[in-house]
Amino acid sequence: MEITRRNFKESLGAVYGAVEEADFLAIDGEFSGISDGPSVSALTNGMDTPEERYAKLRKHSMDFLLFQFGLCTFRYDQAQSKYLTKSFNFYIFPKPFSRTSPDIKFICQSSSIDFLASQGFDFNKVFRSGIPYLNQDEEAQLREQYEERRNQMNGSGTPSYISPLSGKGPVNVPDEHKDFINRVVEKVEALLNNSEKTVDLEPCSGFQRKLIFQTLNWKYPKGLHVETVETEKKERFIQVSKVDEEERRRIEQQKQEREQEELNDAVGFSRVIHAISKSGKLVVGHNMLLDVMHTIHQFYCPLPEELDDFKEVTMCVFPRLLDTKLMASTQPFKDLITNTSLAELEKQLKEKPFKAPKVGCSEGFQCYDTAAEQLHEAGYDAYITGLCFVSMANYLGSFLTPPRAHISARSKLIEPFYNKLFLMRVVDIPYLNISGPDLQPKRDHVLYVTFPKEWKTSDLYQLFSAFGNIQVSWIDDTSAFVSLSQLEQVQIAMNTSQYAESYRIQTYADYMQSKQKSTSK
Amino acid sequence: MEITRRNFKESLGAVYGAVEEADFLAIDGEFSGISDGPSVSALTNGMDTPEERYAKLRKHSMDFLLFQFGLCTFRYDQAQSKYLTKSFNFYIFPKPFSRTSPDIKFICQSSSIDFLASQGFDFNKVFRSGIPYLNQDEEAQLREQYEERRNQMNGSGTPSYISPLSGKGPVNVPDEHKDFINRVVEKVEALLNNSEKTVDLEPCSGFQRKLIFQTLNWKYPKGLHVETVETEKKERFIQVSKVDEEERRRIEQQKQEREQEELNDAVGFSRVIHAISKSGKLVVGHNMLLDVMHTIHQFYCPLPEELDDFKEVTMCVFPRLLDTKLMASTQPFKDLITNTSLAELEKQLKEKPFKAPKVGCSEGFQCYDTAAEQLHEAGYDAYITGLCFVSMANYLGSFLTPPRAHISARSKLIEPFYNKLFLMRVVDIPYLNISGPDLQPKRDHVLYVTFPKEWKTSDLYQLFSAFGNIQVSWIDDTSAFVSLSQLEQVQIAMNTSQYAESYRIQTYADYMQSKQKSTSK
Ligand SMILES: Nc1nc2c(ncn2[C@@H]2O[C@H](COP(=O)(O)OP(=O)(O)O)[C@@H](O)[C@H]2O)c(=O)[nH]1
Ligand SMILES: Nc1nc2c(ncn2[C@@H]2O[C@H](COP(=O)(O)OP(=O)(O)O)[C@@H](O)[C@H]2O)c(=O)[nH]1
Repeated sequence: MEITRRNFKESLGAVYGAVEEADFLAIDGEFSGISDGPSVSALTNGMDTPEERYAKLRKHSMDFLLFQFGLCTFRYDQAQSKYLTKSFNFYIFPKPFSRTSPDIKFICQSSSIDFLASQGFDFNKVFRSGIPYLNQDEEAQLREQYEERRNQMNGSGTPSYISPLSGKGPVNVPDEHKDFINRVVEKVEALLNNSEKTVDLEPCSGFQRKLIFQTLNWKYPKGLHVETVETEKKERFIQVSKVDEEERRRIEQQKQEREQEELNDAVGFSRVIHAISKSGKLVVGHNMLLDVMHTIHQFYCPLPEELDDFKEVTMCVFPRLLDTKLMASTQPFKDLITNTSLAELEKQLKEKPFKAPKVGCSEGFQCYDTAAEQLHEAGYDAYITGLCFVSMANYLGSFLTPPRAHISARSKLIEPFYNKLFLMRVVDIPYLNISGPDLQPKRDHVLYVTFPKEWKTSDLYQLFSAFGNIQVSWIDDTSAFVSLSQLEQVQIAMNTSQYAESYRIQTYADYMQSKQKSTSK
Repeated sequence: MEITRRNFKESLGAVYGAVEEADFLAIDGEFSGISDGPSVSALTNGMDTPEERYAKLRKHSMDFLLFQFGLCTFRYDQAQSKYLTKSFNFYIFPKPFSRTSPDIKFICQSSSIDFLASQGFDFNKVFRSGIPYLNQDEEAQLREQYEERRNQMNGSGTPSYISPLSGKGPVNVPDEHKDFINRVVEKVEALLNNSEKTVDLEPCSGFQRKLIFQTLNWKYPKGLHVETVETEKKERFIQVSKVDEEERRRIEQQKQEREQEELNDAVGFSRVIHAISKSGKLVVGHNMLLDVMHTIHQFYCPLPEELDDFKEVTMCVFPRLLDTKLMASTQPFKDLITNTSLAELEKQLKEKPFKAPKVGCSEGFQCYDTAAEQLHEAGYDAYITGLCFVSMANYLGSFLTPPRAHISARSKLIEPFYNKLFLMRVVDIPYLNISGPDLQPKRDHVLYVTFPKEWKTSDLYQLFSAFGNIQVSWIDDTSAFVSLSQLEQVQIAMNTSQYAESYRIQTYADYMQSKQKSTSK
C-alpha cells in the first residue's frame, strides 16, 4: 500500500491496526545519500572501533533525507499455518507546514539519486506528496506556540519574555502606527453600531496585527472575536466579528480542535514511528544500522554525540531489533550462506536446507511477487527482509527435538540475535551491540602506516612482503592499517621501519593513544 | 523545447544555431534552494556591503544545485519588424559518468523544493534524465586521465608518480598474485597458438587487472590488443585479442574517438554555457546575480573568494550582462513601475506608456503564451525576461528625435544598464557593478545595535522614538542596523546609550572596523 500525504490520514487506522495485530515488523528506508565525505569508504574503515564508526555515520550520514520508509507487518495465522503480511510504502518529505516552521535542508548524493532513478524511484511522489513529520522537540515547540497564542488571544497573556511594550494598561502604540490603529478602532466602533456581523480589516504587517490584537483585547475584552485570516494569495488580514459569550466559547473550542488537527498533521509520519515504538514488537531490518539512526534522527531527536547514549535512545524507541544481515553472517547460517546481500539472501533462503516461508497477503493489500523483484522500493525490501527472518527462524526449529516447522518471533531461539546490528566492513567486530557493551578484539597485530600518496596496495604488499600475508584497511590516500598474520613480527616490522624515510609505522595502540590525546586537547 | 540527456546530443546543433543567430539571449535558472543559513534574511541584510553580500551568497548558496536552466534566444527579423524567439528548457543533473568521477553532493531546501513542487516542477525529469556537466578543471582532469591511460596501454607509460613497482623490466608481481598471473599468461599463450581470435579472462580486482596489463605489455609488446570490458552486471574482466599492427592501430583510433565522445558527453551541459560565453552576446536575466554565480560555479570553476576576482571571471564568461530588475528599478522606469517582480513587471510592460513587444516563435519551437503564465519554468521565465528587456529598450527609443519604435540590443541607449546586477534588499546600493568599482554610500547615520533576543522591531522604534523616523535592518535576533533620518542625532543617540545595560550602540564605522580586525586575526 502506497502512502503519501494525500491518503495518510485515512490510512493511519489501517497502519495502527496492522502494527497492533502483528507478530513482528520489518522495516527498510531509502535515503537521499549515504556519505557526504569524499568517498563511502572514508566512512567504513576495516579497523573502526564501534565508537569511531558511530561518530562517522553520525557526522557524515545524518544530513541526508530518509524519504521512503517501508513497513511490512507479519501476523502468523495458526489456522492457515502461514504468515499474513501487510506492506506499506511511505513517501516522506519535510514540507514546511507554516511560515514559521523549520525549513529543513538536506543533502543529496548524485550517485545515490542516480541509483534510485535507475530503479524507477518516483521523486515526484516524494517532493510533491511526501508526508511531513516533526521530531519530539519540534512537536513540543509547536504545541507550546499554539498554547501561547491561545493565551494571548484570551488576553491572559503569559508571554515567555518581557518586552518594554508588554504589561497591562493601554497599548503603547508607536507614533507612526497611531493613525492606522485609530482607523481600526473606528471601524470596529462602526461594526458594533451597525447590523453587520463581521468586518475585514485591510492586510497589514505582523507587527501591526499584534498592535490590533492588543488594542482590541484591551478596549473590548468581551463581545468580539478577532482572528487572522489568510487569503489565497497568502496575504494576511484580520477579521473582527461580533459574538456573545457562548458563541465566543464555541468558536474558541472549534479553533482548538482545528489546531489539534493541524498539530497532528504536522507530526505526520512520526506518528507511525511512535506506534511502532509503543507496540514494543520485534523490528526486523537488513543491515539496519543506518535505518535505525536515520529513523531516530528524523522522527525522535538529533542523535546524541556518544555511542552509549545512542544505544540508550535506541532501546527506548525500538526495544527489540533484529538485523537479518547479522543473523545470516552468524552460525549456523554463516557456513550455509555465501552472499548476505538482501536480494541474494532472499534467493538462498528459498533453497535447501532452508524452506521458502509460507506467506499470504492480507485482504486489501497488494501482494508482492518475489519473482518480480521490486528491489529498492522500501516496502518490498521490508517484505523480503521479513521473509528472510522467517526462513532463518524456522531453520533454527529443525534443531529441536522433535523438530518444529514454525518458530515464532517470540521464541527463545531468536534471542541470541536481538539488538545486534551488522557493522559493515569491520574486519574483527561483526556487530554493534545495542543492549550492552561491544566486543573488544585484540589489535596487537595491527600497524598504522603512513606513506606518500603515490603508494598503492601493491606497494604495501611489497613493503611487508617479508612478513607473510597481510590485510590492508585504507584510511585515506596516505595512511592505512596493516594487519600482520603473526604477532611476533610486529616488533620486527617496527624495528625495520626505524630508518625509513618515505613511510612511518606505529602500533595500533600507540596510534589510538596519540589520536585520543589530539582530540581531547 | 525541452532538453534532457535523452535528446541533448541531437539538439545541440539547434542550440548552437540559435545562439549564433541571436541578437541577445535571456537566461534563467531554478535551484534546489537559496540559503543554507537559518533564514533567507540572514543572507540579505539591508546594510550589506557588496563584498559582504557576495561572501554570504558564495558561502550559503553555492551548495544548492542549479537543476533547470532556461535559455531563450531573440533574433530581430527586420522584414517582419518583430523578434523571433527560440526557447530551451534544460534539465540538469550531475550524474556520475564513471566509477571514478566526482560524486557531487548538493543541498535541497524544503521550502524551495515545496514551492517548485506546487508549480508542477518535474523532479523525475531532473533526476532520471538531467544532462550531466563538468567544470573546466574536471574536464581537464578527465582529459588527462584518458591520455594517461592511453599512454599506459601503449606501454610508453609516463605515469604522474613513481612507485616502487613501476620502472622497466619484468613486472614485480606480489606472491599471492603469482599463480593468478601465471594462469593468465598460459591462457594467452594458448590463444596465440590456436585459431581463436579472442579470449575472455575471468573477472578480477582492479589491482589484478593492472598486473595483467603490465605483464602482457611487457611480454607481448606486439600482436595483442588488451582491453577491460564491463558486463551488464558491472563486473569487469579483461579481453585479449590477436591483432596485426594495422588492426591494432585501427582499434586504438576507434577507441580514441569513442573516448572523445565520452568526454564530450561528460562535459555535457557546460558546452551550452561555453557557446553562450563564446558568442559574446548580451545576456539578459531578471534579478540574475544568483543565476550568474551558480552558472559560473557549476560550469566553469568554484567561485573565487574575493569579489574582485569574481567580477573578473564573470566578465570573461559573460562579457555583457543586463539585469531587467535593475533596469526596471532605474530611471526613467523607476517612477513608472510599482512592482519589479518578474510576473508583475511583464504585465506592466504591456500597458501604457509601454508597448507589448511584437514577438513570434521560430518554426519548430513551442510558443509560450504569456496569458497561460507558466511561471517558474526556467525556459518560460527566460522568455518573459527577454520580453521585459525588449519593452523597456523600446521605451527608451521614444525619447529620441524622431522617436524610434525598435531599439536594438546593441544600441548605445542600453549601455548604461550593462553589467549592473540587482542587489536584493540593500537599502543604499542598488546594484553590483561587475565591470568596475561599486558605489560607496555614506553610512554615517547608521548605528549598530545589540540587545536581548526578546526585543522586537517595536522595541527598537520605542528606543529611538526621540530621534524621528528610523529604518531597521535585522542582522540576527540580537543585533540590527538602525538608520537614523538625521545625521546630527547620531551623537545624541550614542551619548544616551552610554549608561544603558540591556542594549549597546556603535557607529557603523566603528562596527566595521572591529569586525575587520576580528576577521583578519
Ligand atoms: N594512495 C592510495 N590510496 C588508496 C588506494 N586505494 C584506496 N586508497 C585510499 O583509501 C580510501 C579507501 O579505499 P578503499 O577502501 O579501497 O575504497 P574505495 O576506493 O572507495 O573503493 C580511498 O578513498 C583512497 O583515498 C591506493 O591504491 N593508493
Ligand atoms: N529578536 C528579534 N529578532 C528578529 C525580529 N525580527 C527579525 N529578527 C531576526 O532577524 C532576522 C532577519 O529578520 P527579517 O529581515 O525580518 O526577515 P525574516 O524574519 O526572515 O522574514 C530573523 O531571522 C531573526 O533572527 C524580532 O522582532 N525580534
